[in-house]
Amino acid sequence: MTRYQRLAELLAQRIEQGLYQPGERLPSVRLLSGEHGVSISTVQQAYHLLEEKQLITPQPRSGYFVTPRKAAPPVPPLTRPVQRPVEITQWDAVMDLLNARLDDDMLQLGSGMPNIDAVTLKPLWKIISRLGQQQDPRLFSYDNLYGVPELREQIARLMIDSGCQVTADEVVITTGCHEALSVSIRAICQPGDIIAVESPAFHGTMQTLRGFGIRAIEIPTDSVTGISLEALELAFEQWPINAVVVVPNCNNPMGFVMPLQRKQALLALAQRFDAAIIEDDVYGELAFDYPRPVTIKSMDLDGRVLLCSSFSKTLAPGLRVGWVVPGRYFDRVLHMKYISTGSTVTQTQMAVAAFIRQGHYQPHLRRMRSYYQRNLETFTRQVRHHFPCGICVTRPQGGFVIWVELPEPFDALRLNQELRASHIQIAVGSLFSASGKYRNCLRLSYAQSFTEKTERALEVLGAAVERAMICCAPVSAVHQEEGEGRVREREEN
Amino acid sequence: MTRYQRLAELLAQRIEQGLYQPGERLPSVRLLSGEHGVSISTVQQAYHLLEEKQLITPQPRSGYFVTPRKAAPPVPPLTRPVQRPVEITQWDAVMDLLNARLDDDMLQLGSGMPNIDAVTLKPLWKIISRLGQQQDPRLFSYDNLYGVPELREQIARLMIDSGCQVTADEVVITTGCHEALSVSIRAICQPGDIIAVESPAFHGTMQTLRGFGIRAIEIPTDSVTGISLEALELAFEQWPINAVVVVPNCNNPMGFVMPLQRKQALLALAQRFDAAIIEDDVYGELAFDYPRPVTIKSMDLDGRVLLCSSFSKTLAPGLRVGWVVPGRYFDRVLHMKYISTGSTVTQTQMAVAAFIRQGHYQPHLRRMRSYYQRNLETFTRQVRHHFPCGICVTRPQGGFVIWVELPEPFDALRLNQELRASHIQIAVGSLFSASGKYRNCLRLSYAQSFTEKTERALEVLGAAVERAMICCAPVSAVHQEEGEGRVREREEN
Repeated sequence: MTRYQRLAELLAQRIEQGLYQPGERLPSVRLLSGEHGVSISTVQQAYHLLEEKQLITPQPRSGYFVTPRKAAPPVPPLTRPVQRPVEITQWDAVMDLLNARLDDDMLQLGSGMPNIDAVTLKPLWKIISRLGQQQDPRLFSYDNLYGVPELREQIARLMIDSGCQVTADEVVITTGCHEALSVSIRAICQPGDIIAVESPAFHGTMQTLRGFGIRAIEIPTDSVTGISLEALELAFEQWPINAVVVVPNCNNPMGFVMPLQRKQALLALAQRFDAAIIEDDVYGELAFDYPRPVTIKSMDLDGRVLLCSSFSKTLAPGLRVGWVVPGRYFDRVLHMKYISTGSTVTQTQMAVAAFIRQGHYQPHLRRMRSYYQRNLETFTRQVRHHFPCGICVTRPQGGFVIWVELPEPFDALRLNQELRASHIQIAVGSLFSASGKYRNCLRLSYAQSFTEKTERALEVLGAAVERAMICCAPVSAVHQEEGEGRVREREEN
Repeated sequence: MTRYQRLAELLAQRIEQGLYQPGERLPSVRLLSGEHGVSISTVQQAYHLLEEKQLITPQPRSGYFVTPRKAAPPVPPLTRPVQRPVEITQWDAVMDLLNARLDDDMLQLGSGMPNIDAVTLKPLWKIISRLGQQQDPRLFSYDNLYGVPELREQIARLMIDSGCQVTADEVVITTGCHEALSVSIRAICQPGDIIAVESPAFHGTMQTLRGFGIRAIEIPTDSVTGISLEALELAFEQWPINAVVVVPNCNNPMGFVMPLQRKQALLALAQRFDAAIIEDDVYGELAFDYPRPVTIKSMDLDGRVLLCSSFSKTLAPGLRVGWVVPGRYFDRVLHMKYISTGSTVTQTQMAVAAFIRQGHYQPHLRRMRSYYQRNLETFTRQVRHHFPCGICVTRPQGGFVIWVELPEPFDALRLNQELRASHIQIAVGSLFSASGKYRNCLRLSYAQSFTEKTERALEVLGAAVERAMICCAPVSAVHQEEGEGRVREREEN
């Protein structure tokens, strides 16, 4: 980054943080030059860059002014999925998303891949290399079915931060959170059973339900407070629901952290209807607020919550180290784990255990949390800048994805095909619905460093959305008002 | 090993190979001393050791004679499982076997663990260490769902040795052969379906069937020629069987290599009844004969064979690198793979690919094949020595397990409990039956170096078997004759 780019970045941050208000005059070139000890021409170049980004506007003879800001787009309203159990489709769209990984030139805005470039992850490479040197025969041996004991202990310790008091004996290591969810679902359900899910919900979970012949009932979900307990209660009364799958902390794809009282109420509801809760906490450690939000598992007294998580989002997904704390379903989960993969890879388990034991995990987490939070600011600023009005955008409380809702007839699938020529890939909303809803939505990742390529991609994306929206029916005025007018107070968590 | 132990080992081998026949006089101490350039006392110590092992007998003033040999125990006769589909039990016994891994003091004669001490495996450690040093970001990234391309190519090349012409695109990498079998079964069966299995059959496959609510019909199986095609045909006529699971090469637990014509006939039968064949080839590369036996997959023209394998037995199980070549079921297998674990660990895949590419795999295989074959000789010699008469023992054509059949009322489960005090663990036969048959059988592994500890264990085991057999009803004379009298010609493979 050159001197003028650094200065431009600093000024952009100040504008973002409201230090310079929309319409306000910016300091003169001379003043800034003195303040920052840079040349006149450096300041001029910085101002020129900000002007290009439409953050500031020059007024002849008066200097530069902060460009009047577009209103922040509202958050998406409560979702309205189909109110009956359905069989899941959308496998083709999932395959499209997965196959995009094969194309190195593709800018993968739809991917669930975390950033793995952080310097705080370097010690993990050293550990892997040392494991090879030490020639510990455990690396080559069958792991026991439960997982490497040392890793299970480290996980039990980490879980204290989420309010959980569990012992290493209650933890079963899995091949990523994917296997944790899969064995949990299989441990408590038979084909034909019904599971309630948030709507939208993680496509991996949906496909697992599909693969086991389990029907999903999609529950309306609020982009700030999470699954609608009122709708869930109605569903419980109407259908024999075995379990609820939720991502209450840094939800995928909506980014909310479910308020504490709502978590409590959800658990009470599950108790009342004797259902299990499968709690996916894979993004929980990446909540921007510190200390991190508690899990529903932490309040679980009768072992009905199966907590699933992994190091795929916090460290690196290629390690495939996940875990499940299955409560009262321990034996059945263990059996399902056995028939799914036998034991788990020993080497990556030992590497992660050493990484935590040597004290590298918490500094890495701290770095990633603030990194993602900064990226989110830049990303949403750019989305606001490049996208047309009339959209809704989530305000994630952690993790690294945002969910964008466009007016109803918009077709994200067609958009994705259009974008292929520009080597941009998004996650289309319908992936996140059992019944193919949310074709008007998209999930975007801000995990990777924001580069000029990203900015160009958002520009292309925004223009494509704008073109498509012109063809769409006008946004219903009611919807707009609803979204913008809503007072969204975050409850205490 | 001291000088006299080496000499004793050499003489024991000569006796085993028939160079000195039972009853024949061995060379004088003086002659041997001259021949081998060792002292008189070394020869005397060697002879003393062989006497202790009851391989030779001293006769006063005449020297040492080869002890008249016990007849080699016969191979087990054709098995006679229940002739209807049953639901699988035995999970507790499987857990017992798996939990034995947790006990370092236990001599694990029941384990499916290969030997990982070979010097030819050393380059793999270096590769792992180098992967850590190189910091290739692919190690930390989500692998694509199919597996690392380079590894898939290497596997396609290796498969030529088993007669298969497949491309890398037809291979899906899995978390060990365990996941390969699991996703294959799930791709072609629904709960309630019926799958035909060899009897005895690998307990992992059985538990997978159980977990998915699939019934198993156990087909009588011959310890030399494999699954009875006649019995299988009858079963096909009587029941709607979706698939057959077989381990035709170096069968687990019986060690046979199914003759070529029988493999062809099995495929024809599957075609006639339109059933799939799940072929588990995990021990196939460890056949003692070279070139290795072909797979049924190599003759498969209409894609009905799903070939499952892994590097768990040839390299190291802790790597969890397996694969499936699913033929016409590719898409369904891929979906099942996705919901089972998402993607596979990248690092161990890349390590194995490099190990093969650098030319380390074939030398390692060659070494392990002859190592296991030598171990088998020692092991069966010792079993013959320490076990009572009236047992049947398989003659494995590869791999590293033998199957011992004891007279009917014998209870291997009780034996296993008894042995726990002596820190010896065996695999009880009932693990290998859906209906709990084969309680009178046990599977023993000869994968690990034969040490004094192993010899003591076989002594303890033999004595326990002898004690138990005294309590048993006398072995039926018919059974004995049947076993011993059978002429077992190996068909051409």
